[in-house]
Amino acid sequence: MRALVFGGCGFIGSHVVDALLAAGHSVTVFDKAMERYRAPLPGVEYMTGDFADKMAWAEALSGKDVVFHLISTTFPGTANLDPKADVTGNLIGTLNLIEVMNTLGIRRLVYMSSGGTVYGPAPGHPIPEDYPLNPINSYGIVKVAIEQYLAMYRISHGLQPVVIRAANPFGPRQGHTGVQGVVATFMRRLQTGQPIEIWGDGKVVRDYLHVADLAQLCLAAAESDLCGAVNAGSGQGRSLLDLIEALAHVTGQEIAPVFKPGRTIDVPYSVLDITKAQTVLGWQPATEFRDGLRSSWDWMQTAKA
Amino acid sequence: MRALVFGGCGFIGSHVVDALLAAGHSVTVFDKAMERYRAPLPGVEYMTGDFADKMAWAEALSGKDVVFHLISTTFPGTANLDPKADVTGNLIGTLNLIEVMNTLGIRRLVYMSSGGTVYGPAPGHPIPEDYPLNPINSYGIVKVAIEQYLAMYRISHGLQPVVIRAANPFGPRQGHTGVQGVVATFMRRLQTGQPIEIWGDGKVVRDYLHVADLAQLCLAAAESDLCGAVNAGSGQGRSLLDLIEALAHVTGQEIAPVFKPGRTIDVPYSVLDITKAQTVLGWQPATEFRDGLRSSWDWMQTAKA
Repeated sequence: MRALVFGGCGFIGSHVVDALLAAGHSVTVFDKAMERYRAPLPGVEYMTGDFADKMAWAEALSGKDVVFHLISTTFPGTANLDPKADVTGNLIGTLNLIEVMNTLGIRRLVYMSSGGTVYGPAPGHPIPEDYPLNPINSYGIVKVAIEQYLAMYRISHGLQPVVIRAANPFGPRQGHTGVQGVVATFMRRLQTGQPIEIWGDGKVVRDYLHVADLAQLCLAAAESDLCGAVNAGSGQGRSLLDLIEALAHVTGQEIAPVFKPGRTIDVPYSVLDITKAQTVLGWQPATEFRDGLRSSWDWMQTAKA
Repeated sequence: MRALVFGGCGFIGSHVVDALLAAGHSVTVFDKAMERYRAPLPGVEYMTGDFADKMAWAEALSGKDVVFHLISTTFPGTANLDPKADVTGNLIGTLNLIEVMNTLGIRRLVYMSSGGTVYGPAPGHPIPEDYPLNPINSYGIVKVAIEQYLAMYRISHGLQPVVIRAANPFGPRQGHTGVQGVVATFMRRLQTGQPIEIWGDGKVVRDYLHVADLAQLCLAAAESDLCGAVNAGSGQGRSLLDLIEALAHVTGQEIAPVFKPGRTIDVPYSVLDITKAQTVLGWQPATEFRDGLRSSWDWMQTAKA
């Protein structure tokens, strides 16, 4: 396949690029900046520019078989601060992308959605893809609107979209500024000798998926003829206390978390049902949790930033 | 109440203004143009301008107790043609409105949503408000995103939104250019001696609500402390053939519809469950169907446009 990866220098995108290259595909990357944590990869064509500027990337689409749209101009925890920017950057931006794809007759699109926000307040069991969508924050509202537009253009224009509803991804090259994910944030604090803070009692359960497994699922989805949404999770729920115990094991540090009052925005349990990815795509999360944490920790020791 | 009615010169809005005045409330109207089908009403303050231009209406909000947001910059049947315009005009426009309301501390908002599009492909029974939202066209996608943002701002900023999910409204002052509703479109064709065209076999069932009843529901909702969504329907499903039979009766014309191939976008059955409006708001659709049609027909004979 000739693939164009929007966001290919980002956390998830860089792993998708790795998976595409390993499978022998041709890769072009469009991102706002060059590789941050590694040297540019040989054989990859890089283009940088603003996703909001259609003219910066429209030409790059020409001749591609598949588009991976992994750009988000916002983060789940902060998109509420400026919903108009969220709508403009992500929803309007994606409508631009669909428009150009339609014009060029490119049909295959892999879109990175958010299993942690599109379903809204989660039930007490793993969530299947046909669970009603009921997002309660801007990040999820915009993701849902994009998913619905993709489904609309599937009917009206023959677009072939596959939507990856990712759980909480973690792994090497994840940012650690506190907005991208709790694993990297915790590790950074351990690395720099700061205490780990937990809002609530640490019993909130999440679904932590290693980013390499997520990338494999994106690749499998692109290579399949599946259209519509597919959950990408680990198949297991883990509490923050579980995470801290595993981090203590992997880092060899004793960890005494500082407990802070719970935040009302945290749902107690959010785990994805991954039966569809397993059965339809033949995919499995392959990375054992502690091995995954170790890969993140090892990377963080060598990362320059 | 001191009410500001966005879209108060429009089809639904003009009836909401009538209902507000009849109940003794103070009314300011903001719309893109002055009354089209009637003289400006005494006692009503009119302001005209572009909804996209926040500065044109922000000051009008000052001192108001309740805002009715009845503006749509698009129509259900044509919004797909330019989804970016739909998002910009309606979603961004409404986020602007919420922003200004938050700044001024105005909490009560009555928002006109769309019972015919937010639920998507309808089940074979009247749809209650808690039915999953699954819109399949741009008009519905944008309405759902707006509803979800209203719910979000209810939690984050204490906004008190009530969302009216209207069925197919009809009545005096409905446009008849073919995009606003089938009743006015059919009547206009009868009035001008053109044949009535039906896509499909005429058995698609819809929920036709007289606009005066819809306006009463908007008023009751504003005066209540209900937040969240409420369906506004007639409580009854009617096929296009039922509608044509009633039109023949009301107009005294013999009608021989021209049947055309069915459109795939038409779901066979779409009727709203109105139990919530009846029980929580004590509202009832009061206009008998044929009386409602007669009021439309009579108005159309005298309308200048």
